[in-house]
Amino acid sequence: MSFLMENQFGELPPDKAIDTKTFLDTVSHIPAFFDCLGSKVFTIIKSDINGNITKIRAVYVTNPAKYTTLEDILVAEREAHGAEWPKVGATLALMWLKRGLRFIQILLQSLADGDRDENNPNLIRVNITKAYEQALKRYHGWIVQKIFNAALLAAPYRSNFLKALSKGEEVKEEDCLANLRQFLVNYTATIDAIYEMYTNLNAELDYTV
Amino acid sequence: MSFLMENQFGELPPDKAIDTKTFLDTVSHIPAFFDCLGSKVFTIIKSDINGNITKIRAVYVTNPAKYTTLEDILVAEREAHGAEWPKVGATLALMWLKRGLRFIQILLQSLADGDRDENNPNLIRVNITKAYEQALKRYHGWIVQKIFNAALLAAPYRSNFLKALSKGEEVKEEDCLANLRQFLVNYTATIDAIYEMYTNLNAELDYTV
Ligand SMILES: CCCCCCCCCCCCC/C=C/[C@@H](O)[C@H](CO[C@@H]1O[C@H](CO)[C@H](O)[C@H](OS(=O)(=O)O)[C@H]1O)NC(=O)CCCCCCCCCCC
Ligand SMILES: CCCCCCCCCCCCC/C=C/[C@@H](O)[C@H](CO[C@@H]1O[C@H](CO)[C@H](O)[C@H](OS(=O)(=O)O)[C@H]1O)NC(=O)CCCCCCCCCCC
Repeated sequence: MSFLMENQFGELPPDKAIDTKTFLDTVSHIPAFFDCLGSKVFTIIKSDINGNITKIRAVYVTNPAKYTTLEDILVAEREAHGAEWPKVGATLALMWLKRGLRFIQILLQSLADGDRDENNPNLIRVNITKAYEQALKRYHGWIVQKIFNAALLAAPYRSNFLKALSKGEEVKEEDCLANLRQFLVNYTATIDAIYEMYTNLNAELDYTV
Repeated sequence: MSFLMENQFGELPPDKAIDTKTFLDTVSHIPAFFDCLGSKVFTIIKSDINGNITKIRAVYVTNPAKYTTLEDILVAEREAHGAEWPKVGATLALMWLKRGLRFIQILLQSLADGDRDENNPNLIRVNITKAYEQALKRYHGWIVQKIFNAALLAAPYRSNFLKALSKGEEVKEEDCLANLRQFLVNYTATIDAIYEMYTNLNAELDYTV
């Protein structure tokens, strides 16, 4: 699980404020996750998520002192953009980024929890589908849902996926899952805090693509 | 057809050398073509093609005098990259870009030629499928082919597509098709010349994604 263990999210402070710079530095390792899925089909998704991160960073670097926390960015954009907000700027980018992050979280959690299709124990389609249904499906129109179903066929075998997460090293499955659980602690807390912030600031949208 | 007429390709010189700067400036308007398809599903493709153009431009600007023509770039990269070439740099980007351009060319030509599904005269699926089969399908594995089939369902009606190509103006269909034919002359010649160059330099690959 070196891939994830090397890029752990930090513990949140009591007020759950997320430091923008730390978040951007850690999250920039996440797109590589899609390489672990093994098929070039997923490169497309990697670029979408990379685009989100680039967009947030672009806002941050214009004034790091002003944008110390992610909430600072949302609040500043709300003032700057009027009625266009929240479908604009880093607010929009983070809105989508958090859904991709949630997708990954639920997928990894489902593997850690041992959810599996008893008839096909080496497939991870049930885990991917669970993550998709909870994190993304409602934001996708029926055509993108169909595309998801086609892309699902490119999902790797469970064993290959776990191996890829461990950077190709032969790690015992139990160790790999233990590392996963460890990674998920701060990762999940961070994503939860971002979702909470979107709810509190009334920044969430539910249009479909 | 203002969208296309405003961004016509120039006539090729007798030796069919393609001036890099002119090509890049003209082709940079092409990704907007995918907006004419009307669905956000195609944004993804737009970014892929945009990526190709950015990659070629990035090489060009390092030494405009050295890279006056597209062929100059391919030849220089062949020398610079050894066995990695042609699956590298601007050579790879242009290899894929030309396929996207060919896809658009065949689609527009098919519309100009009046190919249609008599049972669904206002659909352009037959035209898109023809373009896909001739330009791209052989470079796509079965999963991407399935994704194409799903994306096809997001294709616009013929009337809306022609209107979008005319920037939303109400242009008579015959005028629109006449403009299309006019646009296709130099556009097709340019793409043919790029394909010829790839054949001559032995730069074409046929791996699938
Ligand atoms: C030639 C043949 C092919 C034909 C055409 C093929 C076209 C295929 C297109 C399929 C869609 C791919 C997924 C990408 C979907 C994206 O459309 C959405 C919204 O994307 C957001 O849109 C916003 C505007 O509304 C901003 O632009 C955001 O950008 S901004 O930064 O500028 O603000 C952007 O992220 N992101 C998403 O749904 C996020 C997806 C996250 C990760 C999903 C993991 C799924 C894993 C699945 C495993 C089985
Ligand atoms: C969450 C739910 C979603 C789940 C996941 C969804 C994933 C969807 C992915 C579908 C594929 C979308 C099409 C993109 C395909 C691309 O993979 C290919 C090759 O792309 C090339 O690859 C190279 C390396 O091999 C370099 O990176 C090139 O980049 S480089 O510049 O760096 O060298 C790059 O362009 N381009 C293509 O096939 C070109 C496509 C051109 C246009 C096609 C028009 C079709 C119109 C269809 C109308 C109906």
